[in-house]
Amino acid sequence: MPGTKSHRFAAIMAGGKGTRFWPESTARRPKQLLDLLGTQRSLLRQSYERALGIVPPENVIVVTGQSIADDVRRDLPEVDASNVLVEPAARNTAPCVGWAAVHVSARDPDGVMAVLPADHYIRSVDSFHEVMRSALARAERAGTVVTIGIRPTRPETGYGYIEGGEVVEGDVLTALRFVEKPDRLTAEHYLMDGNFYWNAGIFNFTAGRILEDFRAYMPDLAAGLDRIGEGIRRGDRARLAGIVEDVYSRIAAISIDYGVMEKKPAGAIEVIPAEFGWSDLGSWGAIYEHLPCDSEGNVVRGGAIPALVDVKGCLLSTTRAGKVIAIAGVEDLVVIDTEEAVLVVPRSRDQDVRRLHDLVLKRKGE
Amino acid sequence: MPGTKSHRFAAIMAGGKGTRFWPESTARRPKQLLDLLGTQRSLLRQSYERALGIVPPENVIVVTGQSIADDVRRDLPEVDASNVLVEPAARNTAPCVGWAAVHVSARDPDGVMAVLPADHYIRSVDSFHEVMRSALARAERAGTVVTIGIRPTRPETGYGYIEGGEVVEGDVLTALRFVEKPDRLTAEHYLMDGNFYWNAGIFNFTAGRILEDFRAYMPDLAAGLDRIGEGIRRGDRARLAGIVEDVYSRIAAISIDYGVMEKKPAGAIEVIPAEFGWSDLGSWGAIYEHLPCDSEGNVVRGGAIPALVDVKGCLLSTTRAGKVIAIAGVEDLVVIDTEEAVLVVPRSRDQDVRRLHDLVLKRKGE
Repeated sequence: MPGTKSHRFAAIMAGGKGTRFWPESTARRPKQLLDLLGTQRSLLRQSYERALGIVPPENVIVVTGQSIADDVRRDLPEVDASNVLVEPAARNTAPCVGWAAVHVSARDPDGVMAVLPADHYIRSVDSFHEVMRSALARAERAGTVVTIGIRPTRPETGYGYIEGGEVVEGDVLTALRFVEKPDRLTAEHYLMDGNFYWNAGIFNFTAGRILEDFRAYMPDLAAGLDRIGEGIRRGDRARLAGIVEDVYSRIAAISIDYGVMEKKPAGAIEVIPAEFGWSDLGSWGAIYEHLPCDSEGNVVRGGAIPALVDVKGCLLSTTRAGKVIAIAGVEDLVVIDTEEAVLVVPRSRDQDVRRLHDLVLKRKGE
Repeated sequence: MPGTKSHRFAAIMAGGKGTRFWPESTARRPKQLLDLLGTQRSLLRQSYERALGIVPPENVIVVTGQSIADDVRRDLPEVDASNVLVEPAARNTAPCVGWAAVHVSARDPDGVMAVLPADHYIRSVDSFHEVMRSALARAERAGTVVTIGIRPTRPETGYGYIEGGEVVEGDVLTALRFVEKPDRLTAEHYLMDGNFYWNAGIFNFTAGRILEDFRAYMPDLAAGLDRIGEGIRRGDRARLAGIVEDVYSRIAAISIDYGVMEKKPAGAIEVIPAEFGWSDLGSWGAIYEHLPCDSEGNVVRGGAIPALVDVKGCLLSTTRAGKVIAIAGVEDLVVIDTEEAVLVVPRSRDQDVRRLHDLVLKRKGE
């Protein structure tokens, strides 16, 4: 619609630490900045390019942390500096969403926004665009919070779930409740039941809607956001930075799920079921599943030169082009080499990476 | 015996390639130049220092290859250049022993020599000295070939064996036969039998004795050695080098075991049983056995910073000081990191390292 101003915004949340991909991801180079799937673009950049299918470029906002802000700017040179919100401290997702909402609201009192994680995988970008357009339209029209629920294909215990209720309109269902990562038996029940969806961490709402919710359920945060809003209206960037710093130093680290979503009454949240080939890429095992393999199920990443004898189902990776990874007589192992470390862990135990990373920080006295 | 000239010589055979310790050992840095056991001295240097207990310094000869000659000289700065014999090509052990014997014979027609591998482990240096003195004395007195037989402590299938016969004198037995690496059942039989010994690859003989044997069993080599002997007597070093090069370009690569020992009549070879804590350090698994471990049986080599969760019986090593090796949920694995490669192999399959190394050479087109 040339000439028409879009009310639609996308807020990409790019503050994650991604320690589950240590040693390749580090505090200074977290998951969203990595090219985990060998596409020559970081997960963040892919998220940005996907967002361009639903909002105009000037309406893409990126929220990130100070330690990686420069890298984020380098990765997304097209994004105007004023659209990169750099949090002075990590305070989980509620403040991050809040600041983005205030930013949108100041630019467009009728703004509607999609909150998008920066580090997920989406196979069908077309389906994603379709679903997101319908979700933003619904959020704009109904003034509800509209989430995306991924139809489960396996009894996954690593994801949160959303229980869908009755049909409200078209594809839109009431969201009955959010549930945390279930145990295996519960996950199998969810899969059989058919009304449970994976929570993809994507939210759609008008800026006004979510700011009202903060006022109702997180009044301290709402007060802080008011101060930031005032700073934005005054237009003094240096002073605004000072206000943000002060606000962040006082507010609690709380997730948007816990702080708002779980407190809203039934019927105020909706879910649109989707099947666009989503994964949160939560571990090396998930990366393994998304990459091409040889006839023995071995995946070679980066510039690794593999030398394999009786090896099956392994993921091999090095950040040093031309480095050899030589393995004999093992199955289903993850071997990741970087300048800092060599990681060796069975694929079934890839959740231990976080624990190993903690151990390393302790050992190094960090 | 001050003032008395010693007839005793030691020839350290330092030409091995040691591909079983790839990636830490390479053609340019083979096993004998490595400090595999963390003693701050290479295996070669340890062999040299052990030899000083049985012969005077000026009677230690080192035979090595062109590609590592400079490193050998740096590692043994005390050894006179004339005592470092640099083979222009690898021709297995018979030519190597032959050249050393011609060298000894030219310096001392009554010379007796111990042939010593450069890359073995010996726990009790005192016992080694004792046994070697008695072996050299016997070889000198009887004009026989005197080998050292290590009393087996397990049914090892990775070593060759010597069958001992009747007692000839004191500790000295006739060597009835040499046998190649046996299968498990045979190795168990050898262990029970009590007359079989591990072949430590150590030989003692007068230079005259072995040169006579070459004449009898390897006449082509003997002819080449005659030419080298003539070159030595003429004293022209440049010309000698040319002769050696020419001789090596014509002779076959044959081991001293196959070329001479297996052909000598019964009774002409003798064996002295010994128990000085010998190992050929033939694989990463053997290195694992010789290093201190933590309460879970894990061995950490080099400057590796280990981060371990549910890990048992592993050998971890890196040539990069301060590099982390992080492992969870595995047992009895060997993880070796160098600039060139990461090697991951179960301890029980450490014999596959050679195969992996061959694969890598092929991959790299070398």
